[in-house]
Amino acid sequence: MQGKTPEQSRTIMTDMVLPGETNPLNNLFGGELLARMDRAASISARRHSRRIVVTASVNHVAFNRAVPLGSVVTVEAKVSRAFKTSMEVFIDVWIEDRESGNKTKANEAIYTFVAVDETGRPTTVPEVTPQTDLEKERFDAALRRKQLSLLLAGKIKPNDATELKALFM
Amino acid sequence: MQGKTPEQSRTIMTDMVLPGETNPLNNLFGGELLARMDRAASISARRHSRRIVVTASVNHVAFNRAVPLGSVVTVEAKVSRAFKTSMEVFIDVWIEDRESGNKTKANEAIYTFVAVDETGRPTTVPEVTPQTDLEKERFDAALRRKQLSLLLAGKIKPNDATELKALFM
Amino acid sequence: MQGKTPEQSRTIMTDMVLPGETNPLNNLFGGELLARMDRAASISARRHSRRIVVTASVNHVAFNRAVPLGSVVTVEAKVSRAFKTSMEVFIDVWIEDRESGNKTKANEAIYTFVAVDETGRPTTVPEVTPQTDLEKERFDAALRRKQLSLLLAGKIKPNDATELKALFM
Amino acid sequence: MQGKTPEQSRTIMTDMVLPGETNPLNNLFGGELLARMDRAASISARRHSRRIVVTASVNHVAFNRAVPLGSVVTVEAKVSRAFKTSMEVFIDVWIEDRESGNKTKANEAIYTFVAVDETGRPTTVPEVTPQTDLEKERFDAALRRKQLSLLLAGKIKPNDATELKALFM
Amino acid sequence: MQGKTPEQSRTIMTDMVLPGETNPLNNLFGGELLARMDRAASISARRHSRRIVVTASVNHVAFNRAVPLGSVVTVEAKVSRAFKTSMEVFIDVWIEDRESGNKTKANEAIYTFVAVDETGRPTTVPEVTPQTDLEKERFDAALRRKQLSLLLAGKIKPNDATELKALFM
Amino acid sequence: MQGKTPEQSRTIMTDMVLPGETNPLNNLFGGELLARMDRAASISARRHSRRIVVTASVNHVAFNRAVPLGSVVTVEAKVSRAFKTSMEVFIDVWIEDRESGNKTKANEAIYTFVAVDETGRPTTVPEVTPQTDLEKERFDAALRRKQLSLLLAGKIKPNDATELKALFM
Repeated sequence: MQGKTPEQSRTIMTDMVLPGETNPLNNLFGGELLARMDRAASISARRHSRRIVVTASVNHVAFNRAVPLGSVVTVEAKVSRAFKTSMEVFIDVWIEDRESGNKTKANEAIYTFVAVDETGRPTTVPEVTPQTDLEKERFDAALRRKQLSLLLAGKIKPNDATELKALFM
Repeated sequence: MQGKTPEQSRTIMTDMVLPGETNPLNNLFGGELLARMDRAASISARRHSRRIVVTASVNHVAFNRAVPLGSVVTVEAKVSRAFKTSMEVFIDVWIEDRESGNKTKANEAIYTFVAVDETGRPTTVPEVTPQTDLEKERFDAALRRKQLSLLLAGKIKPNDATELKALFM
Repeated sequence: MQGKTPEQSRTIMTDMVLPGETNPLNNLFGGELLARMDRAASISARRHSRRIVVTASVNHVAFNRAVPLGSVVTVEAKVSRAFKTSMEVFIDVWIEDRESGNKTKANEAIYTFVAVDETGRPTTVPEVTPQTDLEKERFDAALRRKQLSLLLAGKIKPNDATELKALFM
Repeated sequence: MQGKTPEQSRTIMTDMVLPGETNPLNNLFGGELLARMDRAASISARRHSRRIVVTASVNHVAFNRAVPLGSVVTVEAKVSRAFKTSMEVFIDVWIEDRESGNKTKANEAIYTFVAVDETGRPTTVPEVTPQTDLEKERFDAALRRKQLSLLLAGKIKPNDATELKALFM
Repeated sequence: MQGKTPEQSRTIMTDMVLPGETNPLNNLFGGELLARMDRAASISARRHSRRIVVTASVNHVAFNRAVPLGSVVTVEAKVSRAFKTSMEVFIDVWIEDRESGNKTKANEAIYTFVAVDETGRPTTVPEVTPQTDLEKERFDAALRRKQLSLLLAGKIKPNDATELKALFM
Repeated sequence: MQGKTPEQSRTIMTDMVLPGETNPLNNLFGGELLARMDRAASISARRHSRRIVVTASVNHVAFNRAVPLGSVVTVEAKVSRAFKTSMEVFIDVWIEDRESGNKTKANEAIYTFVAVDETGRPTTVPEVTPQTDLEKERFDAALRRKQLSLLLAGKIKPNDATELKALFM
């Protein structure tokens, strides 16, 4: 199975923030943003694997900036690394200034998906071959995150989390 | 005010079709698709004008293919021509085959938006300078559609609809 | 198959505008109105044909007046003309002043539906026999719109668009 | 203040049942129907009083028949009786057979609304002058329901519930 | 079949009020609250009966206090009495003050559910054995409400409504 | 400021899974579950702090079990540890078998909220004093997660992540 670049799974969802999607402070409701990211990220994982995919975990979401009512929001998702049957998807969220057209980073998130066949069985996915510096950096960090997640879940021992351990030596 | 290319207003909204967005035949509900196109097209008009924009009319929507539950749908909007304070936005809708990744055209639509200032007054927008053959073709047809719309609304006389009249001569 | 009057397919949907249905300017969101009209118009086409119906196209929607939050909105749909297996539905949208009870026209729209049998095959529908002056006017204009739509889609030649051509002679 | 007929406040909301509005048995979700009736009934109370109205209570709703996915549902609301500042609204819900066009009663409901002025203070509403036999019957029953409601809330004594008491004598 | 206490069917649904769930006065939309109560009450009836349940009627809902945007709302439902195949569910709705944490009663409601088997046939449910004073009071009142409802529907005669009749003697 | 127990911020949101909330596999849509957890967790953080709270991050969500259409789902949130102005909220999600009444753990999640004053400035919150063994375990792990999060964000050096470092020594 041939590797694919993150660019090949890139998914763009540009949309507005309407009143029915806000919280009482008139910003985009966090749950609505989590749902939009889930939709974009799962399309990205599907594009990488060309399989049915299911959300396995949300690994990290940082809400750095509130997204006000009326904003134009772009959710951009790319598969950052694949592990046999699972894929880490990195999501960047941008807000766009109406007058200048400048884009500002509002938050980022990392979700993990598993590819399954028609019977629901996990199935192998292509590897990721990162191209840009940022893609390479995220590819490397994905392994540390993976070990971390296994470690916290008690599925591997600290000594086997080689990438993580190296940080402290 | 400098002209802008359709590419500069290009807006992409890729999203899934969930059960809550279907009709009783298990396809994307027409009203939901009309709403998604309205959101994407208004962002496109806003990117072209960098102004507040309001939907003035829906000029044409052709539902050529049903969009089944679970589809990945891409709505792509670009400003095709500007007329002083209004903009015609052309929208293409694509469905993507999960296994092959091939995209099929599902339908297309034309919406018109008006740019307004903070007090709601129509305000001038940049011209459109089409680049590709398709963009040029749509730019030319936009004038015929404009005359047609004015004619049907009784705002101009048949003789003044020069572009249209030429069709019959 | 006996003809039917537009009155026999008349469909009324009176509803409010709640905050979850507005745009950032606190007016009814255009996409929500397009969806409501789609629902009302498809019921009208179903009442005329007593068949399953699917939206074929939106031919024209003019947003003449914004519909503010809290308004009472009446969407009224009637089949204006039938063409073998398709039906043109004319939709009028009214807002109602709370204190005086007066109704103002907010916008109008034209949608086209196709009647299908259980296997999805287009199936013949009854003719429309207009009664009032307005119904007759809309019935006549429907043919011009039909020819126009075929002409713009390149499915007939200008010389065959007899009704349209007559406008320019 | 002149009385009004129930006909003058008649409100019709015809709509479909889409998948996003069903329960797990593929029928219209009860909560969705309660919400639609609330919207239609409040418009009816507003038409009678030409005032801002707020829901005071739901007095009775009987779900006699499930409303299947894909149905055309008509909610019809009329003010049945007025009591100084409050209005009882009677709601009939109909389902329509696609092939025959026949309507079947699916359920009925009684809601009460209070008219208020801009400061939220209850304000007097016109009387209701019932015309048809059914309207007269509902007008009479409204007083029994009113006494019953006051009795159950402990606001009047059994002996003062004259209409009710008469039932048992 | 052994009786169950109301506590065993107690269902708690604590949630917020977001802008998409309000009416034009910025309070929780009545229809949304009716829907939330329907969901909580049906879970309560299901817990009591361990059967599929369907809403039979809404017997009473009193909207005593508006619930402002941003509130924390707790809907608490308990089966108050069972009648062979039906269950009366009593619902209390509370709002919580953010600073003091104090809870205020916003409204209460009574819904009735029927338990059915897989073929939709009504099926017997356990009895309710009330424990607290409030539960006992509601248990007793449930019979009066039942007779009342049968009486108003013309299904029993005034003389058979023994509990009600006693009120007036 | 006196410490509070996790029990004091416990928030329970029991609800159903309706068709409009599912994905194409007929299970609860991941984004909808993320939104429900966000709502429940923010109420929990508000109860602990009695302040306005905003979502700062989602630290971890594991989707261990799909939640089928028609399920009764209980989201239970408790503040597990406080750090000056932020609170870690631990969320357990349970599904309930209709016939036996047994509850199964479907997934768990960790969100972080910040308490702010009326001007949006972060403000101090009470400490958490865990009572049960599970609460103590989660309280201890919260510090490791906090260090990890700071470490991954490059805000502290490996040597300062004392709790984490200890794992590898």
